[in-house]
Amino acid sequence: MPAITPDALDQRCQQTGGYLCVGLDPVPERLPEHLSRNVEGVRRFLQEIIAATAPYAVAYKVNFAFFEALGREGWALLEDVRAMLPAGSLTIADAKRGDIGTSSAMYAKAVFEQLGFDAITVAPYMGHDSVAPFLDYAGKWVFLLALTSNPGSADFEQQPLASGQQLYQAVLQQAEAWPRQAELGYVVGATQTDAIESVRSIAPQAWLLVPGVGAQGGSLEGVLRAGRTPHGGLLINSSRGILYASSGMDFAQAAAAECQRLVAAMRPFT
Amino acid sequence: MPAITPDALDQRCQQTGGYLCVGLDPVPERLPEHLSRNVEGVRRFLQEIIAATAPYAVAYKVNFAFFEALGREGWALLEDVRAMLPAGSLTIADAKRGDIGTSSAMYAKAVFEQLGFDAITVAPYMGHDSVAPFLDYAGKWVFLLALTSNPGSADFEQQPLASGQQLYQAVLQQAEAWPRQAELGYVVGATQTDAIESVRSIAPQAWLLVPGVGAQGGSLEGVLRAGRTPHGGLLINSSRGILYASSGMDFAQAAAAECQRLVAAMRPFT
Repeated sequence: MPAITPDALDQRCQQTGGYLCVGLDPVPERLPEHLSRNVEGVRRFLQEIIAATAPYAVAYKVNFAFFEALGREGWALLEDVRAMLPAGSLTIADAKRGDIGTSSAMYAKAVFEQLGFDAITVAPYMGHDSVAPFLDYAGKWVFLLALTSNPGSADFEQQPLASGQQLYQAVLQQAEAWPRQAELGYVVGATQTDAIESVRSIAPQAWLLVPGVGAQGGSLEGVLRAGRTPHGGLLINSSRGILYASSGMDFAQAAAAECQRLVAAMRPFT
Repeated sequence: MPAITPDALDQRCQQTGGYLCVGLDPVPERLPEHLSRNVEGVRRFLQEIIAATAPYAVAYKVNFAFFEALGREGWALLEDVRAMLPAGSLTIADAKRGDIGTSSAMYAKAVFEQLGFDAITVAPYMGHDSVAPFLDYAGKWVFLLALTSNPGSADFEQQPLASGQQLYQAVLQQAEAWPRQAELGYVVGATQTDAIESVRSIAPQAWLLVPGVGAQGGSLEGVLRAGRTPHGGLLINSSRGILYASSGMDFAQAAAAECQRLVAAMRPFT
C-alpha cells in the first residue's frame, strides 16, 4: 500500500466535499434482522457498509475493542476488514495502544506491518518513549489522545498543572516537539468544541481526529469552525449514526444517505 | 474458572515463598535454536516455560503486544496460552487498554469473558468512565497504570499538578475512591523504588504489579521493603530474565532456576 500523505488526504477531503471518517464498531446484537448475529454476519454487514460509504469517506476508523470482543475469529475478521477498505482512504486502527518501548514496538508491528493500517490511536500516559516506536514509521500516522469526548476527560486530561496548563495542553506541547518520521495528529472530542480552539493554538497544523459527532452529541458546525485549517486538518468521525441508520434490508443505502447528509453539512466549510 | 481472591493470592505467595509474576513476552527471533522461529515454535516454547515455572509463579503476565505482532495466529495462540496457565495462579492480561465506556466494555468482554483472564492492565488517561467497565466485574482484577518504569514516566506521570501532587498521585487518589466490584491494584515500576513509598501512602492495601526487576534494572530488595504489606500486596514481574535464561536445550530448566533464584531472594521478606 502506498503511504497516504497529508496532501493526498486534503485532496480526498476536497473530492468528497467533507472530512468524514466512518467508524466501524460493529455489535452482533445490533445487526439488521436479516443478518446472522455472529462473526459471519458482521463480515457481511461491514462489507456492504464499506461499499456503500466509500464515496463519502475520507477515512475509516476501525475500533479494535469490538473485534477483540469476538474472540480469535474477531481478530481474523479485523485482517479481512482491513483488506476491504478502499485504497486512498486513510485506514485508522482505533486501538488506543501505549506501553514501554519494546512493547509499543510490537504493537506498531502488529498494526502497521501485520494488519497494514495507515494510522493508529495511541495513549500518551507513559510518555515519549512509549509513543516513539509508532512515530518511527515513515509514511504512517499516529493520532495521540489529547482531549477526549467522555465525561472522564475531566478527571486527568483537564487537570490543571503547576505550569498553568491543563494536562492535555502539556501533552500537545511536548508531542509537537517529539522527533518523528510518521505524521502526528491528535484525538480531540467533538463535545469539547471550545477546547478545539485551545488545541489549535498549540498545534495549528496537525490533523485532528474528532469522534463524538452524532451519538455522543457534539456539534458539527462548532467543530468545523474551530478545527479546520487551510489544508483540511480535520477528520470527523461518526460510527453508530452511520452503521445503524436503518435496521432493515436497506441498512447500506441508509448508511450512505447518512454519510451524504453529514458531508452536505460539512461542505460549506471545506 | 473460580475467582482468585486477595486471600488466595496471599496464600499462594506464602506457598511459593515469594511474589513472583512470570512475564510472557515471546519473540520468535529469541527462541532457543532448536525451536522453529514461528508461531508453532513460540507455542512449544511457552508450554515448556509455563510447566517449568509453575511451582514458583504466583501470577503470569501475558503481554498482548508480543502476540498481536504475530498476526491472527498470534491471537489464537493467546487463547491457547491462557488455557496453559496453571489453575490458582493469577492470570494477567497485560494489554494496557482504556477507551470510552462502550469500547472499554468490549475490551473487558474480550479479556475477561472471551479469553478468561483474571486481570488486566488499564491506562488511566481518559478517566473514570474509561476504567469503570473493567471495575464492574466482580471476581476480576484491574491493575491501573500509576507510575511506570520507563524514562517517559517523567513526561506526564510525574508532572506536578496545581494541587501539589504529581499526576500519578492524583490517579491513585481518585482511583482509590472509585466504586468497584473488581479488585483494584496498580502498576508501579521497580526502577522507581522511592516512589513505591509514596504509592503506599495513598494506597496502603492495594496489590502492586511491579515490572522492571531484572532487564529494566530495578532493585528487588528496595521494592520488597517499600511495597509489601502484612497480606502480600506485591507481584514482582520478571520476563526476559526468565524466558531467555538460556538459549540452549536447557532453556526450561534455566528458566526454573532463575525463578528459584528470584524467589529465594524474596523469601526473607515474605
